[in-house]
Formats: sequence, structure tokens, C-alpha cells
Amino acid sequence: MQKYSGKLPHKGTYLYGRNPLKEAIIASKKSGVNVIEELLLTKASEADPQIMSLIQTNKLTYKIVTAQEIENIVGRDTVHQGVLAQLTEKALYTSVEEVLTHTKNKERPLFVLLAELEDPHNVGAIIRSAVAFGADAILIPEHNQTKITGTVIKSSAGTVFSIPIVQIGNINTTLLQLKEKGFWAYGLTGDGDTSLPSVTFDTPSIIVIGSEGEGIAKKTLEHCDFKLSIPIDEKCESLNASNAVAVTLYEWKKQQG
Amino acid sequence: MQKYSGKLPHKGTYLYGRNPLKEAIIASKKSGVNVIEELLLTKASEADPQIMSLIQTNKLTYKIVTAQEIENIVGRDTVHQGVLAQLTEKALYTSVEEVLTHTKNKERPLFVLLAELEDPHNVGAIIRSAVAFGADAILIPEHNQTKITGTVIKSSAGTVFSIPIVQIGNINTTLLQLKEKGFWAYGLTGDGDTSLPSVTFDTPSIIVIGSEGEGIAKKTLEHCDFKLSIPIDEKCESLNASNAVAVTLYEWKKQQG
Repeated sequence: MQKYSGKLPHKGTYLYGRNPLKEAIIASKKSGVNVIEELLLTKASEADPQIMSLIQTNKLTYKIVTAQEIENIVGRDTVHQGVLAQLTEKALYTSVEEVLTHTKNKERPLFVLLAELEDPHNVGAIIRSAVAFGADAILIPEHNQTKITGTVIKSSAGTVFSIPIVQIGNINTTLLQLKEKGFWAYGLTGDGDTSLPSVTFDTPSIIVIGSEGEGIAKKTLEHCDFKLSIPIDEKCESLNASNAVAVTLYEWKKQQG
Repeated sequence: MQKYSGKLPHKGTYLYGRNPLKEAIIASKKSGVNVIEELLLTKASEADPQIMSLIQTNKLTYKIVTAQEIENIVGRDTVHQGVLAQLTEKALYTSVEEVLTHTKNKERPLFVLLAELEDPHNVGAIIRSAVAFGADAILIPEHNQTKITGTVIKSSAGTVFSIPIVQIGNINTTLLQLKEKGFWAYGLTGDGDTSLPSVTFDTPSIIVIGSEGEGIAKKTLEHCDFKLSIPIDEKCESLNASNAVAVTLYEWKKQQG
């Protein structure tokens, strides 16, 4: 333990909150790749025996800061619980090739592609449901898409460390690449011509979800083999993005038996 | 139009954002009960032709304020789009008796009971999914439960005005009352003994969802006829509350054909 006297992390990806920290440490241990670059704790969180036990077992170093110093970074209304950690970006993301290698013996791998989502709560909840229903990877475009931020990690209940996150360049290029490898792409859209309950997921699949306001971009939707709709009442225009993905993944999982 | 010179609403329930305002006006017109007590617009939102058309058609009065004045109420990071409206609490909520009267000719009415949820984004998303999948009412306890706030209304995409919201006193008393009327209560819980895909929803039903941290209180769970679990991977402890409800309502809706 050192007394903190430097600058707090203020760029790149950080996490906050005690549970996300625990998940990050456990995931680092499991994968052998440490995602925590720098760890800052308040005196109060240093007194948490569960956290201290994890820190000591994994020989992590940390620095002591005040709650105010953390709030200067994460904002006053954020429940940081006296924990802030700067993450190693490289250790967070993996490549399409790596994920394809890892899933090559799987009959029906499932990827979830986030096509320009903005709300970090949605992104976190989608990752959580993707892990819950057994997806094999999350695909996140580099541009116009919420990255893995502290809020995403918190909303994912730490599950962001339990599934490969693939940062991709161009959405459409990636879709074409995966379709060549035998994947079918299912785009979720309000006015799709295929009803979710009628679809049979029996190939490698990609579920594509578009932005909260505009949905999936026209060009991307053209690359989808199925334009998938969840039957809903006309009183409601659309479902929340993470709810729509959860329902789709539930249906997928049910079919895998 | 008047120049604003009084105090902004700062107590009770308010909404913000252009779409929620539109939904509130349309819903007020449909129900004949005006939910908007006081309406404040910035000059920029006064220039929105869709909003002005709705305001004029429905003969609403409003006052002009600055964006800063709205931010003093809703906070700086909130996307208020120059719209703030104080709502009439009475017009927002209805009673169990009223909802029972309205659904008495329905073979299988469906209620969703929020048992001490904290996150307004979850509450909003649940209401949105409840409307989407055809639920007949949302039951919200008076205590330890997020009320209908501006964030809830925004997260519900305005659908909060398309479904009766029932404010209840005691959760367990209400459950007993409804069970006497022929309802079956389904409590969502991670360690339930009934798997969602195996359940048959063929009676009037109440879906109960507990708090994000603790789930459904023990006593309340004892009142549930079924302890319902969604089968998920062991890598994930639980689903996000709104995702769990969406999946359950999707399954319910699918069974209604």
C-alpha cells in the first residue's frame, strides 16, 4: 500500500464499485491476463475484508485516495463505493480471429453485435444477458458506439470479464467476413418480416442490435439474413434495446435445449 | 404563452423531454384526464412544430423558461430538451378496484408487481415491456419503491401513460387480495423451483419482480404460487431486472397466442 500522491486516471477505461473490482480480479486470475493497471481505494474500502483478501491473494498493489478524489473522476452521483481502477485496454479486447479460433469446434456459436448503441446501461445489461444465455462474444464497433466504460461494467454486474469483447472496425465488413464463415445474421428491427417465435436458430448466429433512436442502419440491415421482429402491442412502438436482446437470446437458448 | 416569473416545480412528479411530453398530451386527450399541471418550455422547444401543434389542439397553457432554469431542477446531465412539466399525481395513479373492474371480462388479465425496485431505468424499461407484451396494470408499492419520476417516464418511452399504474399499500396484502380473485402469483427468483419455459400461464396472473440487490423479500416470495427461474449460465448470477421481466412477459405473450 502506498499513499497516493500522483494523478488519478482520467483517460481510457476505468471501473468503479466493489463488485466490479472483485469480478475484474477473479477474471484476471482465471485468464492469466491482468486487466487492472492501477488501483485506487479509499480507507473505507481498504477495510473490506473480501476485497483485501482478493488483493493479497493476487498480489495487487493499490494506492489510498479520498472519496472526493474519486468523485472528481466519476462524478458526484456515481456509486463508486471507494473503488476506482484504471484498466489495461489491451487486456479488455480481443480480435475476431481469436474468437473464431476459440469457437471453431462449436456447432452453433453465437455472437452479439452492438451496432451503434449509446446508452451504457443498455450495453451493460446486454452483455449481462449475453453471458447469461451463453453467447460466445460481444462485437463492438470502434466508432459511434459506447465503449466498455465504468458504467457499462457496473451495469453488466461485472460479467464483461466473462465473455470475449471484440472491437471491430467496420460493422458491414465484419458481417460479410462472418457470413463467409457460415454465420447467419439476425437484425432486430421493429418492422422486420420474420417473427422471432417463428425463427429456427440452427447455424452459427450473429444477433445485431441497432441504436436506441434509429435502430440498425439501412446498409447494415441489408447485410442481415433475417430482419427479426418481436411481436408486440401497437400501444408500444418498440422495446428497450437490452430487453429486445434478452428476449431474443432467451428464444435462442431455448432452442439449443 | 406567459413569461415565467414564478418558482419552478421542484416537488412531486415531473416529466422532461419532448417525446414524453407528446405521449403525456396524447394520453391525456385519450383518457380525458389531463395529467399536466404546469408546463414549462424553452424558446427552442416552443419552436418545435409538433409540440406546438399538440399544445394548441389541446388548448394547453405554458410558460417560457431558460434551459438553465430547467437544469436547476433536473440536473445538468439530464437530456431535458427544453421541456419540463409538473404532473398531477392523482391523474397518474389508479386503484386495484378500478383495474379489477376494467379487466373483469378478461379471461387472463396480467398484472406486473414491482416489489421494491430502485433503479428508475429498470422501472421505465419494465413498464415499456409490460405495455409491449399486453399487461393490464403495473402495481407499485408506496414504500421502498421508485415512483413514477421523470427518468422512469423517459425510460418507459412515454408508455407509462398507456397502462394503469396502481399504487398499493402493502405488497403481501395486495397479493392475498388478488389471489382471492383468482390470480396466480409468479415470483421471479434466481433459485426458483419452476423453470420459466415449463410453466403454463392459463389463469389471471401477477408477475412479481424484486429489488435489484436482494430480489423478492422472503415473506412476499412465500405468497407466490410459483417461484419462477429463467435458466441461465452459471457464469452469470442473475439477469438485469427489466431483462428478466421482458423474457417472462415474452413467454407469457407467446402462450396467449
